[in-house]
Amino acid sequence: MKKEIAEAFGTFVLVFFGVGSAVLAGGGIGAADSISITGISLAFGISVVAMAYSIGQVSGAHLNPAVSLGAMVAGRIDRQTFVRYSVAQTIGAVLAAFSVMVIAKSSGGGFDISANGLGQNGYGAGYGGEFTFIGAFLFEVIATMVFVVVILGVTEEKTGNLLLAGLVIGLTLTMIHLVGITVTGTSVNPARSIGPALFAGGTALAQLWLFIAAPLIGAYAGGILHKMKVTSPEDVSDVVPLDS
Amino acid sequence: MKKEIAEAFGTFVLVFFGVGSAVLAGGGIGAADSISITGISLAFGISVVAMAYSIGQVSGAHLNPAVSLGAMVAGRIDRQTFVRYSVAQTIGAVLAAFSVMVIAKSSGGGFDISANGLGQNGYGAGYGGEFTFIGAFLFEVIATMVFVVVILGVTEEKTGNLLLAGLVIGLTLTMIHLVGITVTGTSVNPARSIGPALFAGGTALAQLWLFIAAPLIGAYAGGILHKMKVTSPEDVSDVVPLDS
Amino acid sequence: MKKEIAEAFGTFVLVFFGVGSAVLAGGGIGAADSISITGISLAFGISVVAMAYSIGQVSGAHLNPAVSLGAMVAGRIDRQTFVRYSVAQTIGAVLAAFSVMVIAKSSGGGFDISANGLGQNGYGAGYGGEFTFIGAFLFEVIATMVFVVVILGVTEEKTGNLLLAGLVIGLTLTMIHLVGITVTGTSVNPARSIGPALFAGGTALAQLWLFIAAPLIGAYAGGILHKMKVTSPEDVSDVVPLDS
Amino acid sequence: MKKEIAEAFGTFVLVFFGVGSAVLAGGGIGAADSISITGISLAFGISVVAMAYSIGQVSGAHLNPAVSLGAMVAGRIDRQTFVRYSVAQTIGAVLAAFSVMVIAKSSGGGFDISANGLGQNGYGAGYGGEFTFIGAFLFEVIATMVFVVVILGVTEEKTGNLLLAGLVIGLTLTMIHLVGITVTGTSVNPARSIGPALFAGGTALAQLWLFIAAPLIGAYAGGILHKMKVTSPEDVSDVVPLDS
Repeated sequence: MKKEIAEAFGTFVLVFFGVGSAVLAGGGIGAADSISITGISLAFGISVVAMAYSIGQVSGAHLNPAVSLGAMVAGRIDRQTFVRYSVAQTIGAVLAAFSVMVIAKSSGGGFDISANGLGQNGYGAGYGGEFTFIGAFLFEVIATMVFVVVILGVTEEKTGNLLLAGLVIGLTLTMIHLVGITVTGTSVNPARSIGPALFAGGTALAQLWLFIAAPLIGAYAGGILHKMKVTSPEDVSDVVPLDS
Repeated sequence: MKKEIAEAFGTFVLVFFGVGSAVLAGGGIGAADSISITGISLAFGISVVAMAYSIGQVSGAHLNPAVSLGAMVAGRIDRQTFVRYSVAQTIGAVLAAFSVMVIAKSSGGGFDISANGLGQNGYGAGYGGEFTFIGAFLFEVIATMVFVVVILGVTEEKTGNLLLAGLVIGLTLTMIHLVGITVTGTSVNPARSIGPALFAGGTALAQLWLFIAAPLIGAYAGGILHKMKVTSPEDVSDVVPLDS
Repeated sequence: MKKEIAEAFGTFVLVFFGVGSAVLAGGGIGAADSISITGISLAFGISVVAMAYSIGQVSGAHLNPAVSLGAMVAGRIDRQTFVRYSVAQTIGAVLAAFSVMVIAKSSGGGFDISANGLGQNGYGAGYGGEFTFIGAFLFEVIATMVFVVVILGVTEEKTGNLLLAGLVIGLTLTMIHLVGITVTGTSVNPARSIGPALFAGGTALAQLWLFIAAPLIGAYAGGILHKMKVTSPEDVSDVVPLDS
Repeated sequence: MKKEIAEAFGTFVLVFFGVGSAVLAGGGIGAADSISITGISLAFGISVVAMAYSIGQVSGAHLNPAVSLGAMVAGRIDRQTFVRYSVAQTIGAVLAAFSVMVIAKSSGGGFDISANGLGQNGYGAGYGGEFTFIGAFLFEVIATMVFVVVILGVTEEKTGNLLLAGLVIGLTLTMIHLVGITVTGTSVNPARSIGPALFAGGTALAQLWLFIAAPLIGAYAGGILHKMKVTSPEDVSDVVPLDS
């Protein structure tokens, strides 16, 4: 049970500071200054760094059902753990979205969830750069696939870099957000999408399936790529560092 | 005494560069360009990185009474050290706020402390996004709790990562500022709040108690969470890294 | 063949997220917010970090024919590997530019490649700060030379820092982009330039030779500098760290 | 001689990318976008990271007469080395300022050095936030003192962190620039100030003495602080990490 509590806590932190940075500091609420996409991307990425080096030793700090699926495909966790982790992550994300909403509503400038949004993901008319379903789907699949390949590669016991893994994974999530916030708000994480969508409702809820399906498909592909050893050395004797 | 001098010096650096970045480079003084919330958040976070890797070996580089309280709750320092550290940190913060004020007043563009502020924390009408007491309090408690959980986790001797601890803690403070500057200016640190409030007076002084109470409550909760081992493994043999 | 697939995959990631950040999030498509040059520079740099720590163990994660040339001059890879790597990198870059274009075209705001560009490099009238050929050439040669000196130095087995190499190299690429995006869009990488130019055509294609020649000249110079040991110690016993 | 060449090369890189980012990408030249103070601060900081991990093993990568003075006060280098390093660093900085000027002048938008400046330091009417001599002097002394304390602390053989030293020092320089660009343009480095001032002339040359004197005074104070062991443990057995 401790691992599930850690995953719920860690995903709470990811959504509270990631989605929270977009809602509270992204310019929607009447503040003079916005942290803009670069600031939001840093908040998401650093939340992973913070959790990887604190609760990472308890549960692995997946914080994301897509990451847990990739870990399952790569044979690192079993199906049951994947299910339990996903449930815990989703609970953490929902609690975080609720907390962000409570704080946002306390803004004197006035926060109307239907007008300001709650950091939900989306696509199409009226959302970000107004990308179609095709663009949104393609981005989420590719981004999650790359994310999972990086995670599985850098955490590989013999050929990875366990010391820096949390930092590398967090920076990678920042990179993905820099590109994707305009496209879909960046999900690559079904739990992160479910949290705000539950409270925002409407279009966010109607489009939610894409932000569950596309990340899971991308994660599955990333897990297969890693398992086929296309993107990882077969064993240490096969390692070819730049300086050889 | 050496440890207290180190804490005073380190907190001076945190407030001189953190608060200083907001006052001198945040757009209040007549400069063409503002570093905005993202730049201020980086300055606060990096000040912790700089101190952790220089004076960290002398005193632990807490730089913050809330962090010292968390360390006490976790059984790492005794009550007397907590008190002595807190006093030293507050002295360093006050000296830094004074130094920033002297430099700010030397601006030809004119710096009027009542108009421009001195990087003080606050809430309610006329401050940032004008969040109410509830939102401000909730944010400070949650953010400090997460901050302390990360600090205690990453510095845990057997299961933490002492090499990267300073970097991870600094980045976490950056993340907290990205979200919180709009809400409360971000305290999570009573000493950091006391420094500017003493010189700014008025509302800053009247609201100061929140930025002492909420961070200490959050830090206490974070210390308890860590001690209950909810967010940390019981021992090394229990460690479950992502690659297992 | 596995190494070539890794290089193609890694260069795909560099161009998909680097060029993709400029095209999709740089303000060209009708979004409210732009990640600006700083965000684009971070995306390019982090893509190298992500690949260095995942596929780096397979192929060295050069992701760039200029880097492969520098590695050849320094005697780390042979001529045949340089050619095979360069071809693989170019294929990855072209596939990435195509993917970015497909997603960009799915924008409801409308994406017209001749008007919006595809993140191609350039110089002269109508491009960025409108630098002449001389300025563009000089910048690309100097920047690539410095890039290669850093890469070869930090990956030197005895005197480098293999643990942090990927992070240092990625940050260096971020620094180069911060300065160069206004000048040439920043190439220092023929594959990265070829990808978008093939689809953008016109001026991008006409100027493409500069973004092949200048980076290769700079990389050659960097390799020679490193080999002459001007910028690297002859052996470990000659090392003079700051604290000696 | 090799060490001096490395210092000249390294300081060239610091000024070419640091000052170059301000001149070429800081908005002065007719580009649509500016990297702003945050981007310039990152460029300065990363240049130190890049050099620390490549030429650091050759010469220590001081890149700054003030840092060399601090190292001399701390007993790490002798007086003769301080002089030779300072000369080499200044030569590198002048060559870099010249290179930036050549590229800037190639801008079709037109670059007039008297109007646009060359990234020189300054204070008073017409410069940044128009701080007086007092504010400028105070800032440069405090910032250089902190910079030198961090450098000497993190590179201390037994109690420092040689692995991360370059990263920590670079980030610290970024922090200093975030605060100081509005105040003085941030020197903390006489060589960095001399380079652009030689070509800019006028006020920059008249005020140059401050950016030689104040950093050297601050560095001397930092060296003394470090030597007095106020900010560093006396020996390893005295080390008090956060987790003890």
